[in-house]
Amino acid sequence: MRNLQPKGSSPGEKGLPRPLSTRSNIDPFIVMDVLRVANEKTVAGDDIIHMEVGQPGTPAPARVVEAAHQALDRYTLGYTDALGLPELRERIAGHYKRQYGISVSPAQVAVTSGSSAAFILAFLAILDPGARVAIPSPGYPCYRHILKALGAEAAILETGAETRWMPTAEGIAALHGQTPLHALLLASPANPTGTMLVGDALRQLVRACDEHKLWFISDEIYHGLDFEEPAKTALAYSDTAIVINSFSKYFSMTGWRIGWMVVPDALVRPIERLAQNLFICAPAISQYAALAAFDAYEELEANKAVYRTNRDMLLQELPGASFTDILPADGAFYLYADVRHLTDDSADLARKILEECGVAVTPGVDFDGVRGKHHLRFCYSGTTERMHEAASRLRDWSRRNS
Amino acid sequence: MRNLQPKGSSPGEKGLPRPLSTRSNIDPFIVMDVLRVANEKTVAGDDIIHMEVGQPGTPAPARVVEAAHQALDRYTLGYTDALGLPELRERIAGHYKRQYGISVSPAQVAVTSGSSAAFILAFLAILDPGARVAIPSPGYPCYRHILKALGAEAAILETGAETRWMPTAEGIAALHGQTPLHALLLASPANPTGTMLVGDALRQLVRACDEHKLWFISDEIYHGLDFEEPAKTALAYSDTAIVINSFSKYFSMTGWRIGWMVVPDALVRPIERLAQNLFICAPAISQYAALAAFDAYEELEANKAVYRTNRDMLLQELPGASFTDILPADGAFYLYADVRHLTDDSADLARKILEECGVAVTPGVDFDGVRGKHHLRFCYSGTTERMHEAASRLRDWSRRNS
Repeated sequence: MRNLQPKGSSPGEKGLPRPLSTRSNIDPFIVMDVLRVANEKTVAGDDIIHMEVGQPGTPAPARVVEAAHQALDRYTLGYTDALGLPELRERIAGHYKRQYGISVSPAQVAVTSGSSAAFILAFLAILDPGARVAIPSPGYPCYRHILKALGAEAAILETGAETRWMPTAEGIAALHGQTPLHALLLASPANPTGTMLVGDALRQLVRACDEHKLWFISDEIYHGLDFEEPAKTALAYSDTAIVINSFSKYFSMTGWRIGWMVVPDALVRPIERLAQNLFICAPAISQYAALAAFDAYEELEANKAVYRTNRDMLLQELPGASFTDILPADGAFYLYADVRHLTDDSADLARKILEECGVAVTPGVDFDGVRGKHHLRFCYSGTTERMHEAASRLRDWSRRNS
Repeated sequence: MRNLQPKGSSPGEKGLPRPLSTRSNIDPFIVMDVLRVANEKTVAGDDIIHMEVGQPGTPAPARVVEAAHQALDRYTLGYTDALGLPELRERIAGHYKRQYGISVSPAQVAVTSGSSAAFILAFLAILDPGARVAIPSPGYPCYRHILKALGAEAAILETGAETRWMPTAEGIAALHGQTPLHALLLASPANPTGTMLVGDALRQLVRACDEHKLWFISDEIYHGLDFEEPAKTALAYSDTAIVINSFSKYFSMTGWRIGWMVVPDALVRPIERLAQNLFICAPAISQYAALAAFDAYEELEANKAVYRTNRDMLLQELPGASFTDILPADGAFYLYADVRHLTDDSADLARKILEECGVAVTPGVDFDGVRGKHHLRFCYSGTTERMHEAASRLRDWSRRNS
């Protein structure tokens, strides 16, 4: 991807007292680079349709915004407890009862600055340097980049259509047999594929982790955004799973940086110590606002209905724009398209689409270092009108280029 | 300190798939433990005066709160650029011109989730595992705990009254001579001592770092809260210093989790890559709100006048409560008292004061593993009325116990 170096940064290191660290040399989260360029174009007056970043086009639900207004007027908004406001931890625990019929103690809930902080806390709590974590590919790129920055190792589980782009017990056993693993980390619904573990698959993976004595980190950030069958939580099958979730996606609160984790009892105090020192607490206003998220299901389900409409529309329209090979769109708000008939350089294709159609999309190289050159990810969480406009621009562009 | 284990956590690890990491075994940030206990007492109906946590008793300035209301109504509040809103980076750069007469490029500014995130980013950018960072003791405990969690090493520079509790060029040279250092990290005004580098001291430390080719990380979070002479920024003397600051203290926005760093050009892109992956961005609403912080100097200077009043009053009153030996209160909002005539166990003394006076204070063991058993930290950022009440309770308590 060209033109993504920020202005003002210099590649050289002359004049520095010492070289930068080796571990700082992680790859960018390319979607954020695309976002910066797209934002610069918007500021310059271009009409850019955002399909690059995995975030709802909607603001937080009205009740959440209202709760934030009230918190601004009522509270000092100083530091909260490191693990979060007690009432928010209670409401999150209650969410498990409502959503999955599962009892979770509020004491096991840690409120975090988005799922990002939860990953840092989980990794530091259970992984020493060199520990290997199995992660599916394609997958969320920050998994492997955070692991690398923290000295742990991502062990890639390559997935394909035959397993709905999800890992299997056999794949884990094989990878563990090569070099011992420490943990498995996966998301279902998944980013970027939009596919899900279906039927009995989650229980089988939990069982495989139990058998090999691996930690199971379940990234449930796209729960609630499931179109084929309800997503199951790992807590249904495991007492020791580390579950990470967030108010960002289903609850439409990305920029609020508020998420949570549910951890086994023995991890509560280590996670609390780490959170006290590394984060102090999640943003107070976001915590007060999030209390109202659990009263906003009506608005959130209406958002979800829009995603479903967009998904169905794009699955119909994108083939006419030469995106003919799209993975099963089970959940989240992503379509992951195989574009090998169009390019061997998805970053270049994404750049062209941004330049020539004003549609920002993310190249697969962000999610899959090997095969991503043949994929693009489209996020369909905008308004239906904008998604229609994107489909129309892409069809025109495809005609011009064919 | 007793009674600080959170309910629901278990010390054992039975039933876990694998042991916790070694690096998770960091000390707590004790002030946050004290805060949790104090908050539980408040909920139980006790009238607790908070002098434990280093945060203003005031909310964010009215203009900031108003800007947050407007942002709630105007914006979707999705992810921002990883390094922050461009207009906020510009205003922060402008702050250096106004406050110190120094030119900083907005491109060198990274907006972070509080100074906490800035420390994580700085440490990961320049320190590989094993790298040694000189930090003064007493000092902010999270420095050494974050360093440990990230595999780096805190090299303690013990300070005393003869150097105003600040490190010296000679001390750095001596420590570097024993085992090579990689960086120096310090704050002035300092936490917990409230003392400052005065006169030419900062320039001498920068020169010492240049001589030994050490990174200089300048924690300037208490800038603006200086009562004896204006705090100087390391940027006045160094092109390669990493400066960390925050809207938490002077700008009265602790719970908003919003801070910043100013870094040399060559660090911008590495910091951006790390921020994209580890944090995505700082809270959007806090960023929009912080834009207005630079229009709120009038209210902020009024806050500062209250701190000065509190400081002067407590310096007069606390000796009557047997806190007779207090360090020079140059800045920040802390009084650090030597209590060796009262106890050899400051944690026990802090617990007694909380139980018997309803005044929450922080034991020195949080800040100085060796000598902290003989110190207490009082934060005087509450209202003058509450600080009076605290002084009065402490005097009565002292009389009862003498």
